[in-house]
Amino acid sequence: MSILIKNGTIVSDGQQKNADVYCNESVIKAIGQDLEVPDNTHIIDAQGQYVMPGGIDPHTHMQLPFMGTVATEDFYTGTAAGLAGGTTMIIDFVIPNPQQNLMEAYHTWKDWAEKSCSNYSFHVAITWWDETVKADMKTLVEEEGVNSFKHFMAYKNAIMADDEIMYNSFSRSLELGAMPTCHAENGEMVFQLQKQLIDQGITGPEGHPLSRPPAAEAEAANRAIKIADVIGVPVYLVHVSTEDALDEITRARSNGQRVYGECLAGHLLVDESVYLDTNFERAAAHVMSPPFRAPEHQKALWKGLQSGNLQTTATDHCCFCAEQKAAGKDDFSKIPNGTAGVEDRMAVLWTHGVSTGKFTPEEFVDITSSNAAKIFNIHPRKGSIQVGSDADIVIWDPELTKTISAKTHHQNIDFNIFEGMEVKGLPSYTICNGVLKYANGELMAEIGSGQYIKRPAFRSIFNALQKQADLNEAKSVKR
Amino acid sequence: MSILIKNGTIVSDGQQKNADVYCNESVIKAIGQDLEVPDNTHIIDAQGQYVMPGGIDPHTHMQLPFMGTVATEDFYTGTAAGLAGGTTMIIDFVIPNPQQNLMEAYHTWKDWAEKSCSNYSFHVAITWWDETVKADMKTLVEEEGVNSFKHFMAYKNAIMADDEIMYNSFSRSLELGAMPTCHAENGEMVFQLQKQLIDQGITGPEGHPLSRPPAAEAEAANRAIKIADVIGVPVYLVHVSTEDALDEITRARSNGQRVYGECLAGHLLVDESVYLDTNFERAAAHVMSPPFRAPEHQKALWKGLQSGNLQTTATDHCCFCAEQKAAGKDDFSKIPNGTAGVEDRMAVLWTHGVSTGKFTPEEFVDITSSNAAKIFNIHPRKGSIQVGSDADIVIWDPELTKTISAKTHHQNIDFNIFEGMEVKGLPSYTICNGVLKYANGELMAEIGSGQYIKRPAFRSIFNALQKQADLNEAKSVKR
Amino acid sequence: MSILIKNGTIVSDGQQKNADVYCNESVIKAIGQDLEVPDNTHIIDAQGQYVMPGGIDPHTHMQLPFMGTVATEDFYTGTAAGLAGGTTMIIDFVIPNPQQNLMEAYHTWKDWAEKSCSNYSFHVAITWWDETVKADMKTLVEEEGVNSFKHFMAYKNAIMADDEIMYNSFSRSLELGAMPTCHAENGEMVFQLQKQLIDQGITGPEGHPLSRPPAAEAEAANRAIKIADVIGVPVYLVHVSTEDALDEITRARSNGQRVYGECLAGHLLVDESVYLDTNFERAAAHVMSPPFRAPEHQKALWKGLQSGNLQTTATDHCCFCAEQKAAGKDDFSKIPNGTAGVEDRMAVLWTHGVSTGKFTPEEFVDITSSNAAKIFNIHPRKGSIQVGSDADIVIWDPELTKTISAKTHHQNIDFNIFEGMEVKGLPSYTICNGVLKYANGELMAEIGSGQYIKRPAFRSIFNALQKQADLNEAKSVKR
Amino acid sequence: MSILIKNGTIVSDGQQKNADVYCNESVIKAIGQDLEVPDNTHIIDAQGQYVMPGGIDPHTHMQLPFMGTVATEDFYTGTAAGLAGGTTMIIDFVIPNPQQNLMEAYHTWKDWAEKSCSNYSFHVAITWWDETVKADMKTLVEEEGVNSFKHFMAYKNAIMADDEIMYNSFSRSLELGAMPTCHAENGEMVFQLQKQLIDQGITGPEGHPLSRPPAAEAEAANRAIKIADVIGVPVYLVHVSTEDALDEITRARSNGQRVYGECLAGHLLVDESVYLDTNFERAAAHVMSPPFRAPEHQKALWKGLQSGNLQTTATDHCCFCAEQKAAGKDDFSKIPNGTAGVEDRMAVLWTHGVSTGKFTPEEFVDITSSNAAKIFNIHPRKGSIQVGSDADIVIWDPELTKTISAKTHHQNIDFNIFEGMEVKGLPSYTICNGVLKYANGELMAEIGSGQYIKRPAFRSIFNALQKQADLNEAKSVKR
Repeated sequence: MSILIKNGTIVSDGQQKNADVYCNESVIKAIGQDLEVPDNTHIIDAQGQYVMPGGIDPHTHMQLPFMGTVATEDFYTGTAAGLAGGTTMIIDFVIPNPQQNLMEAYHTWKDWAEKSCSNYSFHVAITWWDETVKADMKTLVEEEGVNSFKHFMAYKNAIMADDEIMYNSFSRSLELGAMPTCHAENGEMVFQLQKQLIDQGITGPEGHPLSRPPAAEAEAANRAIKIADVIGVPVYLVHVSTEDALDEITRARSNGQRVYGECLAGHLLVDESVYLDTNFERAAAHVMSPPFRAPEHQKALWKGLQSGNLQTTATDHCCFCAEQKAAGKDDFSKIPNGTAGVEDRMAVLWTHGVSTGKFTPEEFVDITSSNAAKIFNIHPRKGSIQVGSDADIVIWDPELTKTISAKTHHQNIDFNIFEGMEVKGLPSYTICNGVLKYANGELMAEIGSGQYIKRPAFRSIFNALQKQADLNEAKSVKR
Repeated sequence: MSILIKNGTIVSDGQQKNADVYCNESVIKAIGQDLEVPDNTHIIDAQGQYVMPGGIDPHTHMQLPFMGTVATEDFYTGTAAGLAGGTTMIIDFVIPNPQQNLMEAYHTWKDWAEKSCSNYSFHVAITWWDETVKADMKTLVEEEGVNSFKHFMAYKNAIMADDEIMYNSFSRSLELGAMPTCHAENGEMVFQLQKQLIDQGITGPEGHPLSRPPAAEAEAANRAIKIADVIGVPVYLVHVSTEDALDEITRARSNGQRVYGECLAGHLLVDESVYLDTNFERAAAHVMSPPFRAPEHQKALWKGLQSGNLQTTATDHCCFCAEQKAAGKDDFSKIPNGTAGVEDRMAVLWTHGVSTGKFTPEEFVDITSSNAAKIFNIHPRKGSIQVGSDADIVIWDPELTKTISAKTHHQNIDFNIFEGMEVKGLPSYTICNGVLKYANGELMAEIGSGQYIKRPAFRSIFNALQKQADLNEAKSVKR
Repeated sequence: MSILIKNGTIVSDGQQKNADVYCNESVIKAIGQDLEVPDNTHIIDAQGQYVMPGGIDPHTHMQLPFMGTVATEDFYTGTAAGLAGGTTMIIDFVIPNPQQNLMEAYHTWKDWAEKSCSNYSFHVAITWWDETVKADMKTLVEEEGVNSFKHFMAYKNAIMADDEIMYNSFSRSLELGAMPTCHAENGEMVFQLQKQLIDQGITGPEGHPLSRPPAAEAEAANRAIKIADVIGVPVYLVHVSTEDALDEITRARSNGQRVYGECLAGHLLVDESVYLDTNFERAAAHVMSPPFRAPEHQKALWKGLQSGNLQTTATDHCCFCAEQKAAGKDDFSKIPNGTAGVEDRMAVLWTHGVSTGKFTPEEFVDITSSNAAKIFNIHPRKGSIQVGSDADIVIWDPELTKTISAKTHHQNIDFNIFEGMEVKGLPSYTICNGVLKYANGELMAEIGSGQYIKRPAFRSIFNALQKQADLNEAKSVKR
Repeated sequence: MSILIKNGTIVSDGQQKNADVYCNESVIKAIGQDLEVPDNTHIIDAQGQYVMPGGIDPHTHMQLPFMGTVATEDFYTGTAAGLAGGTTMIIDFVIPNPQQNLMEAYHTWKDWAEKSCSNYSFHVAITWWDETVKADMKTLVEEEGVNSFKHFMAYKNAIMADDEIMYNSFSRSLELGAMPTCHAENGEMVFQLQKQLIDQGITGPEGHPLSRPPAAEAEAANRAIKIADVIGVPVYLVHVSTEDALDEITRARSNGQRVYGECLAGHLLVDESVYLDTNFERAAAHVMSPPFRAPEHQKALWKGLQSGNLQTTATDHCCFCAEQKAAGKDDFSKIPNGTAGVEDRMAVLWTHGVSTGKFTPEEFVDITSSNAAKIFNIHPRKGSIQVGSDADIVIWDPELTKTISAKTHHQNIDFNIFEGMEVKGLPSYTICNGVLKYANGELMAEIGSGQYIKRPAFRSIFNALQKQADLNEAKSVKR
């Protein structure tokens, strides 16, 4: 399939320019005016529209087995919904149970994901530690194209990584050129507060945010950053939801440390008042961790993206329906954690970010696509409109509008946290691997048409860190 | 014994005033001009001198069993040295082993301390957790006058308190009106770095600071502060040695949290270059934790005291002689940790603090005595020259000079970290419990003449915190 | 007149204690149990009540000529209203016009103030500079008991002090041992924004806060602090209204600089939405500078008081009635700036500060009285319940309630910014100079019964600063 | 002239890749492997070397008339020296005297610059204000390709811009899509301190840094940032030399404000001890403003570049020889301010930045070239190795070494502030406008061969700012 996108404004790599884009054999073959293309080329007129790299959602959980149930959105429906929203790649998570072999878990997830219709890749969680874990990390990096490892600092008595696991895993990541990532919440605090709230009789969803205060996130964020600092490895914090955690990132970055932060569309736009909804279903539908926060945090997160202290936007897309959420009817701590968003992320960010002047279109591309590609080392193959890049493209119509609703979305879940929000700025076309997958409301997403993306180990940054380590290495004093 | 101090300038409670002080039956009976006193009253002429509350050192370890040996300075020699330096009270530490009964440990230390010749009191360390610990904390607060509990966040596989112990102990402290205190260093980081350094062949004392980087202290400081914040209890950090940890305190205080910080005379005046001394004995003699730091930290600590973000000065007085230090000849991690200073603290602070204009004499009194009395709830009985206060007084001659040396000090240790430092400003007289114990170089410290000081549970601050908790307590949403 | 206050809880100097207080000949003569007093002594039973130092409002403008009119509240009615609210002393401002002789202005204000019925003192504004100003500053400090000079950084083309005036005046203050104070708003920004808003057709009171954004205050706050820093003199910022300006103070203090901040009761409790009131009179009644702010600033100011980065509370009491405010009907910049509060300050602070657990009663005394006395160098004569202190006392009943209203207040103004607020915690008795002036709702304030309070030049702090200057003074390099 | 660069590693736009580069007719025509090129193409083998965008020095003063003399380095010698060091473009300054017509000054400088042998462009200083200035700014932006205006906040009684000038000029810049830039030092403080130091007899170069303390820079930096914030325009601070000023930038950026900072090679590597040199000539040779600083500032500046809070590196290249510096023999304030560096900037940054692991080669390109091109809106024409970009290229040999010395440098000055520094990493070839100008030590820089570069007004960022302004614009309340 050959596609020629004509008359659009390309937005990529910090610039806007008016030029046509020719895609063939899954890559971008040419950019320019008056391109010569084969006769059978499909031509799209992008007059008045932006031609941008397809969105990358670096944080999703398709069909995740969690808290006694399984997320309803699978890799097919989830990636399809993504395409409908302009997202052409997700990075999902392999989460081994403690003591479970990493490679086994990896292959389980990889099999599940084969039905994807957009591109996908995996972070692998480190939930325990021994020599096999250490060895498997190397296999994953060198043979399987996994260049990032996740650490859950919450979920005590389950998948929580304590300081010992983190120290070992971060050290190993440095050796391998892989990026450690963290879910930063202090699991002990959450555990104690859950107990205490239930004891006080606060059993409804309003207990959820009370059990996970901003201080719990800030503490863990700082701890992860400090461990990374002592070891000399970069670190990436997922779903930063509080001003407090952002402050930790900002401080570390200002100090020259290589720390990265991700922000969810939901945390930017939904506040904690949802947990006070007297309707249990609605309140429970918003239960995710970290929880939605007070408005001051949202204000801070927008500034974090504007300042560049946060670089990426994601969704933590993880779908549980009302029936599943009902498991926590009498105990908020048993409500399966998760909300959707992979379809809506780009539209809500454009509407509330670009249309308000917070971001230029160039910056929108950075925070929805390019920065994730850079941080996870697949740029400019992904996240860029360049000759030679993969043809993952969204054509963005700044005049298109719709009202978001669970009734009309493609996501396989009965609820939408942005229900009723009017958005202006939507994809008219989504192209993935050079194939047109979404066009003016029509989804053409074939099951299994997505591709697994290997991400190579880091080179330049880790080389620089190694030079620092060499210089810092203490010399024994002769006595 | 009755004492009349004439013609001096009283410095106390933020003021200077010229008045005489009359002490009788261990308390201050009168302050004023032309006081009428009994005939047999001992009269001291303090012309040109300051009359100040006796120093309080809130952090000492007399005759501590530690790292396979016992500190050489006992409660008698240590409190005597303190009196020679103007310090009339110490707060030492009861440190139960994990699983050891708290009351048993408390009584052991109390017995040891009976030979003290100045006043003394105890913090009790919480090194493990079960219901007996919880019960004993109550007994200690309500019957034994212990209003502070210590948590070692370092020393993995020994007395380290993890988040679970800390959360439980801090919560209990709030219930009892007691102050949690912390030695803030991340034990996991220290453990890993020690291993790594020894593996790299860095076995000498230069490895000590490398194994305990500022980030390890900052991480733990922040963690302690955040746990206290979530629970709503004040917290006191002992021996803050880095700009990084101070920044955590400053940030929390600026946010209205009740956080306190202590600073050691040694950390203010000695820097980390001592560990590079090619003479093992000298290098090892400086091994204490946290270690001495780079000069930028000293600069920050002075500012911390000036700003009031640090309130107290102490010594962590814990004496090990060369023979004992030699245990770590081939492995720095085996050098018994500890340095002396109870005798020198006030003189070095006057010389480097007041004479340089960093502090007024009033502020000197605050940081050497009154603030400790306030924070540990024995003010104005201690730390104040008021009618009705205990007669713990130092008469300070700003013109007296000496050169500090292990050869001449009263401390029972073969080394002085301030060796060779010229100080100007020294006690001419020290009065403790209304008795003259030190006069113009002569020490008159009778064994066992000191008094155990009970410290009552806090009231006003905890009442306020309780009001906040009541207001914050979430109401269950009716559904 | 002799007064004995029995059975109360004294709150002063950081402590609470149960003791009686005996006042005679305008001072506190004795504190204790079972005091022997003359027969004709007036006895007040303070059972269940707090006995506290009378409030000090360090920022009022009685009968100020300003913006073409004169404040309606004069020194008699204003100090009387203060007494009804527990405030026994004000510090008002002498504001010479540019080119006006300082001593002349001083005597004008002093004459006006003679009718005061509580104690009073003056800051003197420096609005221009020449050698006579320099000379008069010395006279004021050494002969008239003025130890503080005010600088308006706003009001371009009127009384604004530019960097040159400030540098000269701050330098002179250092020589004299006087405290420079500043109204921190960048006058150029305000001037330009007023012009721009009027040009845009925004002429109503809603333009007032828009013309004085937080950045204008923060800029000036930082500039004042930096000038003070370069010169080495303390500085006090009046009516800090924004988180941004507070941050500047916090930063400087954390760095060890001697910077102080004052906060108005109004800024703590009233937010900027009042300027959107569709009723012009109500909106205009709130016009003062700096304006009331967004809620996030109020939150920050409370934390500033809790942290001690702000030390004093005041009112900027300056009364203009509806008729006067009407001058700005068509141009917000012509509305006379000012609001009332001298009567309500203590009650609203107790209600919103102590009853919510933000402050202990001890801390309430600090922020309403003692800190102002310390900063302006009249402690412990003022701001303390000590034997020998002036008998300025408020007996505070924590159970008394009322609803604040312009209909019932004693202030000579037709509006109350706290209208309708229910307060719990009010004075039952106010004693000033040993005389009962307010008792259970009855005001007994005789015209002219107040006393002018001379405030001596600073000694201890300036001595310390001088030592620093001596050390810092550069030595010429020999070449 | 056609040039093919073979076998090198291209470093540009955040990536490294191995590909050949073909330049023709002054632009980059092709990038790839096995490129077909004309026969007469000059081939350069860059095996083992980096192919990077030519350096851009955004801050030079060639042949500047200043302080009664004229800088010795003219546009020809200066740009030639730049080419020898890998710099292919400078941005110099047009500095009208107060009351001088802007266009007249612009044309004077433009004439002087015609002899340049590398590319050049101009910032224009705004040193006064009236309607002609306002009009000329428009002409400069729209017709002459000037998109940045400079404001000197220092130099009282000369070219200092006060708040009024800055407010007006910044507002005008916003209208025009131009970037305001500032030399941030508080001119009043400097003026007063100079007077005071001379009065104290401190007349030598050691007085220079004492008269320009970090607080003077921090104050001005904050003021410029706050004025920009109120107006809603970006701002760029030149030669940030202190941790304090950097902190202001960091704070503003973290808050989402568009603030940029530049850093001089000299400030990164030379400290203030040079002013204590007992040799007047050496001390005076280092006199520039802001002065070299204490080592803690250098540490902070490196971190500022690493964190991205500083984006560009420059030199403030301005040459005065010993004879000229002698004018200040008896009064440091009369020493012509200025030091050289245009030739050495890239080599010292590589040596101390890349070789130490502080930066990757990609980041080196950003801070020496691309960021300046982006901030001054000429990217990717400049600062990038892309097809279509101007062929301004440096081929960088990481193994080349030399010892910097005034004896061997190309700069027309008798002193080098990096004298004796060994650098490793130097240009082997410099290509400017597609012409080889420097090759293995040989300079082939023809007078007048440089090109004036017009810089267009900003679009995307200012569009976004305009959207914010529209939203923020207050609506008049209807009453």
